Parts: sequence; structure tokens; C-alpha cells
Amino acid sequence: MLKVGVVGRWRRLVTSEWVNTVRSHVSLLALLVVYTLLGSKIFQVLESSAEKSRLDEAKLRLSEARHGFLDSVEGMDAVLGNGERERISGLLRKYEEAAEDAQMGGASLTTDANPRWNFPQAVFFSATVLTTIGYGNIAPETAWGRVFCIVFALVGIPLTLTVLASLGRPLVSLLPVASIERLLPKGRMKTAVTILATLSLLVSFLALGGLLFMWLDSRTFMEAFYFCFITTTTIGFGDIVPVTD
Amino acid sequence: MLKVGVVGRWRRLVTSEWVNTVRSHVSLLALLVVYTLLGSKIFQVLESSAEKSRLDEAKLRLSEARHGFLDSVEGMDAVLGNGERERISGLLRKYEEAAEDAQMGGASLTTDANPRWNFPQAVFFSATVLTTIGYGNIAPETAWGRVFCIVFALVGIPLTLTVLASLGRPLVSLLPVASIERLLPKGRMKTAVTILATLSLLVSFLALGGLLFMWLDSRTFMEAFYFCFITTTTIGFGDIVPVTD
Repeated sequence: MLKVGVVGRWRRLVTSEWVNTVRSHVSLLALLVVYTLLGSKIFQVLESSAEKSRLDEAKLRLSEARHGFLDSVEGMDAVLGNGERERISGLLRKYEEAAEDAQMGGASLTTDANPRWNFPQAVFFSATVLTTIGYGNIAPETAWGRVFCIVFALVGIPLTLTVLASLGRPLVSLLPVASIERLLPKGRMKTAVTILATLSLLVSFLALGGLLFMWLDSRTFMEAFYFCFITTTTIGFGDIVPVTD
Repeated sequence: MLKVGVVGRWRRLVTSEWVNTVRSHVSLLALLVVYTLLGSKIFQVLESSAEKSRLDEAKLRLSEARHGFLDSVEGMDAVLGNGERERISGLLRKYEEAAEDAQMGGASLTTDANPRWNFPQAVFFSATVLTTIGYGNIAPETAWGRVFCIVFALVGIPLTLTVLASLGRPLVSLLPVASIERLLPKGRMKTAVTILATLSLLVSFLALGGLLFMWLDSRTFMEAFYFCFITTTTIGFGDIVPVTD
């Protein structure tokens, strides 16, 4: 009896709504995984060869400059022996390691190091935290800076969301949604038209921002549009950041 | 009559709900502005002096290494004249400029350049786009990579949100909210207790993630916790990124 009871309960579970829910979750998740893997492959194809040629070219230029330097130093005095080139090259290698360490720490070889934590940059940084954009071109590096960043965000992000929602509401009420709705076709077409209209609105908005940023930051339109998209979606790579002088 | 009508309408507008709405918007916005400025000042105070000493130290090390190199080259042969040091220094400066350019392009002075766009990194990148985290340690640099990134995100972010919402729902239903609600005090205290409980839950969750990341990535707990927070909030600076080897 107990066994039958368990099987019965199990069967009820299998055919229950719960299973359907799990099934729909799993298929959605599978869709997302496939989508991500496919997208990743496309990114790799698009970027990797361009990256390789960029790296190769940079390496070639560097190696030429290095040889140029060694040749010049060697040529300065004919008295320098034959084995000297190797010794100078070894010395230079040690210096290069030190220079690379310095550059990691933010000190440049050829220009004065620019401290980034001035007040305007700090405001810019705070704004990227509150909007969760987080470009990351500057980020706190001290322990207390990071602790404060967490507390600042914990209170500030909900506050920002509240303000954005409150500012967004009258914006939405400005749109004559009701009269637009009447213009839309009924049924399936309605969804398609709605998506298309929303997309056009978004793209126009980004294009407008793109034009502005292109003019302010002297970029190509494509770069400026891409920057606006990456910012609006709060992805915020930080690969393109407004110039701050 | 017309004038009175206008004034009347104006008065009605001034005392209307609309004005109250604007007033609440403005005060909320003002609060956010004050909050941001105050936070920015604190960030600046916490970070700027640490940054300065970091830069100064890096510069000092670099300058010592440079002098060391020049001294060694000079000392190699006593035949080198007195003006030679300046000439070698000038030649070295030119080489350093080339080296810095190369490093901007991703080529290192001392190690082989590592191409980043392999498949695992591309998957990691795609995931940071879909979740809008956007660490930015890798980002598309070709025009077509950027175009694809926009299209990929336009479809993928809503898809990800759908999946996250669908996965979140059963998680919420697991929480015995109703029985917890009965335990809560009534009135104002309820809000405070709810906030505190939510916060504790979040901090515990982040601490757990922090412990895991600390172990996986051999970091301090503070760094790991900070990384988890910056990731969970989708801020994603990219200053700390999981090691990928």
C-alpha cells in the first residue's frame, strides 16, 4: 500500500504543473546556453584574427625599435667588443622589466603620471557606480575605498532607481499610448509592430546620443553609437570613455 | 476675461497635483545629487593620496632602473666620452616611446603577448554582456565585433532577464515568506526589520561567494567580497577579474 502510495504521489508529481514549470525553465536555460555559445563563437571569429595581427604588428614595431637602439649604442664607439651587444641587451631586458612594473603601477615611461582621483573624475566614478555602468577606467584600490564603495552603492543604487523611475513616469505619460494603441493592428502583428516601434525608438535615441558624443569627443559615429549602447545598457566596458581634461 | 481665465488656469496648475509631483521629483533628484557629490568627495579623500604615493613610488623605481641601465652601459668602456651619456639617454627615450606604443597595442616588453580572444574567454565575455556586468577586460575592437555585440545584447539581455526571472520565481516560492511575515513586528519597525533581514541575506550570500572566490582565485577575503559585490550589482569594473588559465 505504501509503495502504491509513493508511486501515485510520484505520478501526480510527474504530471503536475511543477514538472511543466521545470521543463520550461530548463528549455529556456538551454536556449540561453546555446545562444551564449553561438554568440561567443561569432565574437571569437570576428575578433581573434584582428587581435592577432594587431599584436604581431605591435611586437614587430617594438622589436625594430629595440634593435635600432642597440645598433645606435653599439655604433657609438668601435672600441666596444663583439660580445658587448649581448651584454647591453641583457641589461636592457632588466630595465624593461622594471619599466613594465612601473607602467602596471600607472607610471609612464615617457609622460608624467596623471593622478586620476581628482574631484570631477570622482563624480564621474560615483555616477558610474550608482547607475551600475561601472566603466572601471578608475576604481578604488584602497581597502577603505572599496568598503565605502560597497556601502555607497548599497544605499545609492536603490536611490538612483527610485529617482529614475520617478523621472521616467511623467515621460511615459507624455507618450500618447492610448492613441497609438488604436493605430496598431490586432493579434500577432501587434506584438511585432510593438517590438519594432520600441526598437526604432531605442535606436533613434542612441543615434541622437551618438551624434552628440561624436561631436563632443571627436569620434566616428560607429564608435559613438557603440559607446552610447554600452552605456545605456549599463554594460560599461570602459574601452571607450569620455575624454576628461 | 481672457486674462482672468489664464490666471485662473495658472493658479489651478500651481496648486495642482502636477506641481506636487514635480516638487517631489526635484527634491528626490536634489537628494541624489547631494548624495553623489558627498560620496565623490569621500572617494577622492580615500583614494587620491594612496594613488599619489603609488605613482611616486613607481616613478622612483623606474627612474632608478633607468639610471642603473645608463651607468652600466657607460661603465662598459672607459673610452666612451663624457657627452655620451646624454646621447644614449636620448636614444633610450626614443626607444621607450616605441615600447609604450607597443604596450598600448597589447604587446609586452618582457613577456609574449597573449591573445585574449580564445573560446573560453569569448564565453566569459558573452556572459558579461548578457548580464550587463561588462568587466571590460576584453571588449570587441573591430567594427563588426561591435555591431554584433549590439545585436547580441539587444536580443540576449531580455532573454537573460527572462531566464533569471523564471529561475528566481521558484527560489522565492521556497522562502516561507508568509510564516516569516507573521514573525515581523507591525508598523514602522516592520520596514526596518525587513531591510535589515534583506541586507543580512545579501551580505551572507556575498560572503559565501567571497569565500569561494577567495579559495578559487587565491585572493584576500576583502578583495573577493568586493569582487562579488561589484559583480552581483552588475557594476563590473573589471579591476578584479577571475584568473583564466
